[in-house]
Amino acid sequence: MTTEKLVSEIRKKHSFLCVGLDVDLDKIPSFLLNEEDPIFSFNKAIIDATHQFAVAYKPNTAFYEAYGIQGWKSLEKTIKYLNENYPEVFTIADAKRGDIGNTSSRYAKAFFEDLGFDSVTVAPYMGKDSVEPFLNFKDKHTILLALTSNEGAFDFQTKKVEDDEVYKHVLKTSKNWKNSENLMYVIGATKAEYLAEVRNIVPKSFLLVPGVGAQGGSLTEVCKYGMAENIGLLINSSRGIIYASQEANFAEVAAKQAEKMQLEMKTILDGIH
Amino acid sequence: MTTEKLVSEIRKKHSFLCVGLDVDLDKIPSFLLNEEDPIFSFNKAIIDATHQFAVAYKPNTAFYEAYGIQGWKSLEKTIKYLNENYPEVFTIADAKRGDIGNTSSRYAKAFFEDLGFDSVTVAPYMGKDSVEPFLNFKDKHTILLALTSNEGAFDFQTKKVEDDEVYKHVLKTSKNWKNSENLMYVIGATKAEYLAEVRNIVPKSFLLVPGVGAQGGSLTEVCKYGMAENIGLLINSSRGIIYASQEANFAEVAAKQAEKMQLEMKTILDGIH
Repeated sequence: MTTEKLVSEIRKKHSFLCVGLDVDLDKIPSFLLNEEDPIFSFNKAIIDATHQFAVAYKPNTAFYEAYGIQGWKSLEKTIKYLNENYPEVFTIADAKRGDIGNTSSRYAKAFFEDLGFDSVTVAPYMGKDSVEPFLNFKDKHTILLALTSNEGAFDFQTKKVEDDEVYKHVLKTSKNWKNSENLMYVIGATKAEYLAEVRNIVPKSFLLVPGVGAQGGSLTEVCKYGMAENIGLLINSSRGIIYASQEANFAEVAAKQAEKMQLEMKTILDGIH
Repeated sequence: MTTEKLVSEIRKKHSFLCVGLDVDLDKIPSFLLNEEDPIFSFNKAIIDATHQFAVAYKPNTAFYEAYGIQGWKSLEKTIKYLNENYPEVFTIADAKRGDIGNTSSRYAKAFFEDLGFDSVTVAPYMGKDSVEPFLNFKDKHTILLALTSNEGAFDFQTKKVEDDEVYKHVLKTSKNWKNSENLMYVIGATKAEYLAEVRNIVPKSFLLVPGVGAQGGSLTEVCKYGMAENIGLLINSSRGIIYASQEANFAEVAAKQAEKMQLEMKTILDGIH
């Protein structure tokens, strides 16, 4: 998907919501466990109920890998279902991969070509030649971890390296990589004031923002500091939406939660136009 | 596997060789493509032929993921085959994972419990709470990326942060994490002189060293700077061993290459005793 198409979907749906599909068999409604593929059944119901309020879906691959072959089958079915039924949504494989060049090429092929995701999250630690193989795919996006939303973000990412914090150094360095126009960045919402500094370095890039809601970040603050001319934000919510209810009407309740966030987003978008 | 057991295997086999199982269908002997599971057939032949010269095997998960469900099946069969037939070898899932706490727990469970690997490689960028869930497993080992063997290592890992380079900061910080005795580190061989500095910080930890051979590092140099009292080294070789021949006798040729490295290792080990 092109960035222009993503922006146009955001404007059409008045939403920059990304729903995180972090499926845990211990947390989904127990009656689904009788289904042949409970994970896919859950995802399908959530997607069908929430797609009008969301522009993106983000399965975190760890939750699928944890169920072995069966989990990978559920992941394959989920991305296929999205691509066939809702080709207008932006899909993110939250895989946090990154390896030496020829190995990163393998991951890129797996996520972009074989599975058909629009984007994949990638860790920056191994540098340029570990990320560029991902950037090599037309209309596919590489979402580089810059400043994450967890406690451990302060262990390395915010340490001073040369004149900058590590995460700023990552942002600046990555701009010089080949096909860097295919880069987006993960910037945690728990530190909204950092978003202004991020915007000084990457004024137009899309930012995938976890940590609003469950992890304590505020949507208004994130938009205040992080919104760009082309919106440039995807706000992720996982648990707050998909596990809002464990009852028979779980999908309906999830839709209500998604709609609530979408309405907040609409208010913000209306306010800036 | 305990570290003591690994050290005892190294002394018994006079080898600290790790064979990287980075299986690529374009590179394996073409007659294997007629087999039901060419990847597993290849791995099985390589393992059977080389196990007397190697103490560890390291499949890089990217190569398996690239083949989708079929690739994951081959990976499952490979680790199962190793655990059932050669329980004395140390197994490494080269997955370079790392995510927020509850998600890292998922990966740890998948690799340690479900697949049954002895260790997994983990990226440090997200800090303490992204790594500690891996450290929580008894007699399982977390091999943290510190200084990798690729060009991109110089993008961030060797930059000065506070008083140290990033990779040294990672080493020092990680020593304070809970169950840090379960940590090992990836240190690339292409910069052997760095190994002395690494040993100042982690005198006893095992180091997984890629980049000897194909990527240009020297075994003698690595041992000179990196060997510890308990040996503390696993030297990885992938392409140089497993793709030494594409002919019918590929496994035999691979074994010859493995033996050659093992003999060099024996000479070094004999020299220090």
